[in-house]
Amino acid sequence: TAVKDGDEWVINGHKIMTSNGRVADFLVVMCRTEDDDSGNANLKMTQIIVPTDSPGLERIRSVPIWGHTGGDHMEIKYKDVRVPLENALGARGSGHQAAQDRLGAGRVYHCMNTIGQMWRAFDIMVKYSTQREVHGGKLETKQFIQGFIADSYIDIQAARLMTIHCAEVMDKGGNSRVDISAIKIFVPEAGSRVVDRAIQMHGWRGVSSDLPLAGMFQGFRTLRLADGPDEVHRILIAKQILKRYHDGLSWDFGV
Amino acid sequence: TAVKDGDEWVINGHKIMTSNGRVADFLVVMCRTEDDDSGNANLKMTQIIVPTDSPGLERIRSVPIWGHTGGDHMEIKYKDVRVPLENALGARGSGHQAAQDRLGAGRVYHCMNTIGQMWRAFDIMVKYSTQREVHGGKLETKQFIQGFIADSYIDIQAARLMTIHCAEVMDKGGNSRVDISAIKIFVPEAGSRVVDRAIQMHGWRGVSSDLPLAGMFQGFRTLRLADGPDEVHRILIAKQILKRYHDGLSWDFGV
Amino acid sequence: TAVKDGDEWVINGHKIMTSNGRVADFLVVMCRTEDDDSGNANLKMTQIIVPTDSPGLERIRSVPIWGHTGGDHMEIKYKDVRVPLENALGARGSGHQAAQDRLGAGRVYHCMNTIGQMWRAFDIMVKYSTQREVHGGKLETKQFIQGFIADSYIDIQAARLMTIHCAEVMDKGGNSRVDISAIKIFVPEAGSRVVDRAIQMHGWRGVSSDLPLAGMFQGFRTLRLADGPDEVHRILIAKQILKRYHDGLSWDFGV
Amino acid sequence: TAVKDGDEWVINGHKIMTSNGRVADFLVVMCRTEDDDSGNANLKMTQIIVPTDSPGLERIRSVPIWGHTGGDHMEIKYKDVRVPLENALGARGSGHQAAQDRLGAGRVYHCMNTIGQMWRAFDIMVKYSTQREVHGGKLETKQFIQGFIADSYIDIQAARLMTIHCAEVMDKGGNSRVDISAIKIFVPEAGSRVVDRAIQMHGWRGVSSDLPLAGMFQGFRTLRLADGPDEVHRILIAKQILKRYHDGLSWDFGV
Ligand SMILES: Cc1cc2nc3c(=O)[nH]c(=O)nc-3n(C[C@H](O)[C@H](O)[C@H](O)COP(=O)(O)OP(=O)(O)OC[C@H]3O[C@@H](n4cnc5c(N)ncnc54)[C@H](O)[C@@H]3O)c2cc1C
Ligand SMILES: Cc1cc2nc3c(=O)[nH]c(=O)nc-3n(C[C@H](O)[C@H](O)[C@H](O)COP(=O)(O)OP(=O)(O)OC[C@H]3O[C@@H](n4cnc5c(N)ncnc54)[C@H](O)[C@@H]3O)c2cc1C
Ligand SMILES: Cc1cc2nc3c(=O)[nH]c(=O)nc-3n(C[C@H](O)[C@H](O)[C@H](O)COP(=O)(O)OP(=O)(O)OC[C@H]3O[C@@H](n4cnc5c(N)ncnc54)[C@H](O)[C@@H]3O)c2cc1C
Ligand SMILES: Cc1cc2nc3c(=O)[nH]c(=O)nc-3n(C[C@H](O)[C@H](O)[C@H](O)COP(=O)(O)OP(=O)(O)OC[C@H]3O[C@@H](n4cnc5c(N)ncnc54)[C@H](O)[C@@H]3O)c2cc1C
Repeated sequence: TAVKDGDEWVINGHKIMTSNGRVADFLVVMCRTEDDDSGNANLKMTQIIVPTDSPGLERIRSVPIWGHTGGDHMEIKYKDVRVPLENALGARGSGHQAAQDRLGAGRVYHCMNTIGQMWRAFDIMVKYSTQREVHGGKLETKQFIQGFIADSYIDIQAARLMTIHCAEVMDKGGNSRVDISAIKIFVPEAGSRVVDRAIQMHGWRGVSSDLPLAGMFQGFRTLRLADGPDEVHRILIAKQILKRYHDGLSWDFGV
Repeated sequence: TAVKDGDEWVINGHKIMTSNGRVADFLVVMCRTEDDDSGNANLKMTQIIVPTDSPGLERIRSVPIWGHTGGDHMEIKYKDVRVPLENALGARGSGHQAAQDRLGAGRVYHCMNTIGQMWRAFDIMVKYSTQREVHGGKLETKQFIQGFIADSYIDIQAARLMTIHCAEVMDKGGNSRVDISAIKIFVPEAGSRVVDRAIQMHGWRGVSSDLPLAGMFQGFRTLRLADGPDEVHRILIAKQILKRYHDGLSWDFGV
Repeated sequence: TAVKDGDEWVINGHKIMTSNGRVADFLVVMCRTEDDDSGNANLKMTQIIVPTDSPGLERIRSVPIWGHTGGDHMEIKYKDVRVPLENALGARGSGHQAAQDRLGAGRVYHCMNTIGQMWRAFDIMVKYSTQREVHGGKLETKQFIQGFIADSYIDIQAARLMTIHCAEVMDKGGNSRVDISAIKIFVPEAGSRVVDRAIQMHGWRGVSSDLPLAGMFQGFRTLRLADGPDEVHRILIAKQILKRYHDGLSWDFGV
Repeated sequence: TAVKDGDEWVINGHKIMTSNGRVADFLVVMCRTEDDDSGNANLKMTQIIVPTDSPGLERIRSVPIWGHTGGDHMEIKYKDVRVPLENALGARGSGHQAAQDRLGAGRVYHCMNTIGQMWRAFDIMVKYSTQREVHGGKLETKQFIQGFIADSYIDIQAARLMTIHCAEVMDKGGNSRVDISAIKIFVPEAGSRVVDRAIQMHGWRGVSSDLPLAGMFQGFRTLRLADGPDEVHRILIAKQILKRYHDGLSWDFGV
């Protein structure tokens, strides 16, 4: 929470995952600024810029993710941290909406990034299948491996087309909420499948640091719960669609 | 096989699945016309038009599919059936290629048709979820059902975009073989998932003839093995992709 | 509902799915006999024997399932149907519990039956793989087919062992509710996977009536929603397990 | 390879993954000792004990797995390493069979270990669901979460029963090869599904080191390719089953 005191905000709180929280010079903190209990909770949040050298801001630890210590996902405590009123971004109560707007584009960006990595995993996998000799011939001659390649093609192509479609809807100013949630669910899952096959095909190499695959595997898994977990996005999609039916309309996939 | 005898083809053979074989006035029969053993087997087939009232053509039975007797998938025997030489379609040996060309477009058509049915199943499912009251409320308020709706949205959107993409590649005269095989695999599978959820949500109604869902379920299942089974299309995709890598290139999803 | 009138029950209602309703001489009808709104709804049901030639009992239609007309799943209307009081099975209000008891054993029986059919499908599939020659050799030499066989082995073995385990728990008088729901979900799904692979491997034969596979496929699909749909059984399992944790205990898989 | 030179073996080779290779005082090295090209390759291997301080044995690096440097999976080079003849374990050419025998039991042990971890993940997951409050109530009241619990129950119960069954077959001296390969495939996959759900339910906590879940997730994934990858075990199962059919028998699941 942030409370106004004279011409300053006084911020108190505890946030566990703050990516880049160690190296950053300032943080954008989402604070509850309105404390009455009535009305829409989404209208009570304000984003406030907080310099990381502010007195009262304490970096507790770097939270180890996937067993990697020393990363830059910081647990941070705010104890009576004071910043000038003008550090608020936008109007009071606009914080939630601003975050959603930025997160929408952020999610598309994450998906694009994932597609690039899937493509790279695909390239590594197909190349290796033409080189590695196992019992009875090259990997590329084995149907299990051919299945890995074909299914990965389908996963990448579907992920790519859905992400482009979503970006086009956004560009045209259409309602892209369903499509954003759809790619937020589909693309990291498809990415997990592709990189899982690439790992499998490489044996021990797949999980070693001789290849970038193990890192992708962890990253895609994390994506399924960061930026809103799959479950929440499934609910969002259903609610948007149901809303149209309650309004006496139906869903048009062709738009 | 068809053997030239004077100005006639003499056709002998036995073909079990001949769709529309009962009502049709003529059939297009794929015959082996060249009998030397050398060379490419694909160059030895010719398509020949055979009137169904030709002497020697015997309709053995209508093959029951999904337990439905009396359908129009005929088992047909050809015993010394004679037709004029000019009944051959195109040049001798062109039959295989002609069939592949027609099947490519046919597969895209089947996928479009499947997407239309998925969409209809989706519409039925969402509507019903807003009406049916079960223990504890309307179906639409249950997360399992919301998950059905969201996952079906994703399946339909992916199927739709991949099919449009494939048709665009064909239109531009590009190499669409990988994309045709990809939708031939993906779309009936996605369709099966969507209609499976729609059936589940309707309880006994889902498998009854009060709704079109049971028929879709059977049709989509059949599609996974007709027009080339999934396994063969997986192999085709892999081989096309591997060919590029053997040529020292890589795969470009962006084309 | 059934209302007591002198020494008779007067039954009114409309039930759509009544298996064997055409050939049966009498039906066991689950009636609401207690009409006060208080208390546990499960204690308000009584099972009553109704001869099918009772005046007021009307067979409306045989509901077509999977497109098969003329089957014996009857839609039946009850209009002021009168039967003697002694036709009630057991005490008033005992109907729900009696049905649950019988359904538990019935579900295990359905699973055993499903396992027998899976086994038969497996046998048909393995045999065919040793006989059918496709492009490049016998089906049994293809990895896709070997994968079908291996995965089907696993599905059948898991289904078999879980069903035996459940029956053992019942025999010993243990709490088998979680295990009954678990096999009610798992076994028809595993059966669907096995028979799906058997169908695929047989091409058009798989969906034709030359083999029993198409019928199994429909039957297993129906099982996923009859006798309590999967969703309801998932909820039941979770609630039973959560109850133990709320009681300060944990779950012991070893019992 | 190991070549006999007087009363010593002279070993040359390069092995990348040697677990415990850093701390071990001696290694058991599988060497090709028979160099004629004829006959069964499996009869040409011998296991030889090699002290890690032997001259010519060079530890090249610890191979980083899942991004963790400093682990004990060593890449080791053998250059003219000499050990006495009596360091051979068993008869010449018995190495492959000895390894298979030991690996069989080792695989069952890995599965038991995996089941213990799945159970722990299940316990953590159910407990957390009774504590964590999200939008609209406790996690335990959400159907998605109830589905996670129910499906995890099924996965653990199936994995447990199959592993016990396999151990019983081994105990009775039966042919357990199919069952060993079956659990080698099924149990790590089931474990991956269970821990994946546990991670998802915990949000960022799931992938952090505050819980043991991230480590399990990596370990189960590794198991799918170590000790023989899934693909090889699928082939082994199919071949064992097909052998019976070629011998005119069929498969009996009941033994
Ligand atoms: C953490 C870790 C520790 C290990 N410790 C040890 C150790 O202590 N000692 C030791 O000896 N080894 C060890 N290994 C090695 C391990 O046993 C091998 O990685 C594993 O058996 C697979 O062999 P490979 O990596 O050479 O893969 P390959 O044999 O090259 O196979 C690669 C992939 O190709 C595919 N494939 C292989 N054969 C076929 C086929 N016939 N048809 C279709 N597809 C096929 C599979 O997907 C497979 O995963 C370790 C591995 C790991 C990851
Ligand atoms: C071939 C066949 C024969 C049958 N024979 C008989 C018979 O002889 N006697 C008899 O009494 N019945 C019979 N039935 C009926 C059968 O028992 C019911 O179809 C089944 O129990 C489901 O009930 P419902 O169809 O009313 O579905 P509903 O209760 O309307 O449920 C529909 C769907 O909604 C979902 N759902 C339900 N509850 C929830 C929830 N709480 N949360 C989330 N989702 C939920 C599920 O997906 C469910 O499938 C038969 C059915 C079939 C198909
Ligand atoms: C309803 C229906 C209507 C039809 N109508 C017609 C029609 O009008 N005209 C017509 O010509 N045909 C028709 N067909 C036939 C259809 O095209 C074939 O069933 C289909 O192409 C598969 O061929 P098959 O049945 O001979 O299977 P097979 O070639 O015997 O293959 C059987 C299975 O083996 C597996 N398999 C095959 N090859 C491989 C491989 N290389 N590696 C691994 N696995 C493999 C696949 O799982 C495949 O499904 C129809 C089929 C159906 C079901
Ligand atoms: C590597 C990493 C970096 C991060 N960096 C940042 C950062 O820089 N800034 C920041 O603000 N956050 C950051 N996060 C936090 C991230 O946004 C949250 O982890 C994520 O949004 C989920 O929130 P939570 O962990 O509190 O999970 P919870 O909200 O507690 O949810 C836990 C789980 O419960 C289930 N669940 C939740 N709601 C429902 C529902 N209604 N119905 C059914 N199931 C439900 C889902 O499975 C969910 O995963 C980071 C996370 C990670 C892993």
